[in-house]
Amino acid sequence: MEFKKGDIYGTHRVLEPKGVLPQPADKLDNTMEIYDNEVLIDVQTLNIDSASFTEIEKRAGGDVEEIKKIIMNIVETTGKHKNPWTGSGGMLIGKVAAIGPNFKGDLRVGDKIATLVSLSLTPLKIEEIKEVRPEIDQVDVKGQAILFQSGLYGILPKDMPKELALSVLDVAGAPAQTAKICKPGDTVVVMGGGGKSGILCCWQAKRQVGVNGKVICVDGFKKSINRAMSVKCADEYLVVNATDAVAMYNEIMEVTEGELADVVINVVNIPNTEMASILACKDNGLVYFFSMATSFTKAALGAEGVGKDVNMLIGNGYTKGHANVALQVLRDDERIMKLFAELYA
Amino acid sequence: MEFKKGDIYGTHRVLEPKGVLPQPADKLDNTMEIYDNEVLIDVQTLNIDSASFTEIEKRAGGDVEEIKKIIMNIVETTGKHKNPWTGSGGMLIGKVAAIGPNFKGDLRVGDKIATLVSLSLTPLKIEEIKEVRPEIDQVDVKGQAILFQSGLYGILPKDMPKELALSVLDVAGAPAQTAKICKPGDTVVVMGGGGKSGILCCWQAKRQVGVNGKVICVDGFKKSINRAMSVKCADEYLVVNATDAVAMYNEIMEVTEGELADVVINVVNIPNTEMASILACKDNGLVYFFSMATSFTKAALGAEGVGKDVNMLIGNGYTKGHANVALQVLRDDERIMKLFAELYA
Repeated sequence: MEFKKGDIYGTHRVLEPKGVLPQPADKLDNTMEIYDNEVLIDVQTLNIDSASFTEIEKRAGGDVEEIKKIIMNIVETTGKHKNPWTGSGGMLIGKVAAIGPNFKGDLRVGDKIATLVSLSLTPLKIEEIKEVRPEIDQVDVKGQAILFQSGLYGILPKDMPKELALSVLDVAGAPAQTAKICKPGDTVVVMGGGGKSGILCCWQAKRQVGVNGKVICVDGFKKSINRAMSVKCADEYLVVNATDAVAMYNEIMEVTEGELADVVINVVNIPNTEMASILACKDNGLVYFFSMATSFTKAALGAEGVGKDVNMLIGNGYTKGHANVALQVLRDDERIMKLFAELYA
Repeated sequence: MEFKKGDIYGTHRVLEPKGVLPQPADKLDNTMEIYDNEVLIDVQTLNIDSASFTEIEKRAGGDVEEIKKIIMNIVETTGKHKNPWTGSGGMLIGKVAAIGPNFKGDLRVGDKIATLVSLSLTPLKIEEIKEVRPEIDQVDVKGQAILFQSGLYGILPKDMPKELALSVLDVAGAPAQTAKICKPGDTVVVMGGGGKSGILCCWQAKRQVGVNGKVICVDGFKKSINRAMSVKCADEYLVVNATDAVAMYNEIMEVTEGELADVVINVVNIPNTEMASILACKDNGLVYFFSMATSFTKAALGAEGVGKDVNMLIGNGYTKGHANVALQVLRDDERIMKLFAELYA
């Protein structure tokens, strides 16, 4: 069998307009014959992005048959599921059906995977929509999809429920990046430390900094801090409002005896927490912004305004092996496995 | 003489509302008696932020006396120059009149300095407005101001015209950060490399990467590339539209023989250049976003969408000694000194 040579980003599948990447493209080639570096997936379930599903449901007046028609129409017209009203997609769950000879990765035919790249850039063909589950934005289908060489995926593990694994894969980048940036002996502040992503980051940070380091879990809500304390993922726990920069500075100054943090990880899901992150960090330290509510200009001008020589990183949802790192946290700590199973599965 | 102890960020000067930083504060204490870590400045000129000056000029119907009244009123009411309609300030030029005994820095009484922090957080008292120069947004005053311990400044050098020095100090963070992140042997792409900041970054990058490295200056305009070529600040020069990610990827692939860049520095002043920066960078490379037009979410989701494991830094306008680094470029290269003198002085 002969294969055509594919581009790693999938630009060979772009029909209109020519020369752009698959995500911004209007129309993709969804022929289900793989190129040399592609993966063919038998799709079982589409996890439609929440904003997108809500929009489709509204247009359909809540009618399930109408929802099916709208989704079929989007995919038939564009070769992918990119909601034209919201611009968003979602992700999918399926089984690996075929792997191109030049695809680089640890996949095998028959593996059950979740794609961790958006449906808005994934070539998709739907034969039939079997079931719509509006309460969880899921659609069971008979269909096929293509994963590009650059496309991220997570192999669904056999040792935990699917829903639990998915809830962790969703935020897998944060703990994996935490592992890369924290060094033994570091003092690490995790802002928003009581949330899903925050608990994983605290746990991973504690593993990296070791006995000579210190992990400080900060959250705006007592309830979240109690949750973090129940799994013992940090050394110190503080309830502080992350939009109050001066309060954060004073609290972190006190708990670090005037030293401040080597690393500040921000996973707070509300705006205006940039300055508190900057002030909690010592000179030449590292602030890692993982929250999508982060404003680039507030961070850049904020650090300059207070003359703070800190390195500020934009959270990248991907780093090599991120799915494994995140799932391993649950395997290594049954308290977190149990807590997440209660909360998300 | 006894001094009261000041906070490094100047929160001791905040009158309303209590507990916030000087920048967001509504009212500062502008008593011109310094605390132990403050600097007193005899102010000569206010460089009003361009957006702010335009707004004030409009409100005054272009009348100079009315402009004076509006500025005086802002400063008398709030103790600083933070334009209530734009939220912005500007910077000032003046002479150091007194230095608190606990201020840490290289200042001496009599030094002529430009403050590199915003007027929107600088305690200011104006006795008299002497002259308004609307064509360059400048206001000459008799007055005094306070610099906090955290406040940035640049000592105006004696070996070049004031306007030339100011134009460089304005973007001093970019070349100084470039010096920190580029290593010998690196391949560096500077996007927007033909502009003021871009030329300084190219030059500094070339100095860092040495003979085994390569600096690629990319700009969207032939005119800017010609300017960069005239001062020989790079090894390669390319005209590429930075909003066209695929074109950028192809061009950088070609010029690096498929290796891509170790470091990508983005100083392009238009939106939607995040993806081109990410694609130009190799895995585990570093993308440095210095443009205020950068979108945090476009960068974060962009890298994830193409599965690219790159480190992305938010440009911090400040790093230790940044003013010296930037001014030194002009001293070390008379071609750049001459070009900038023509363009900006």
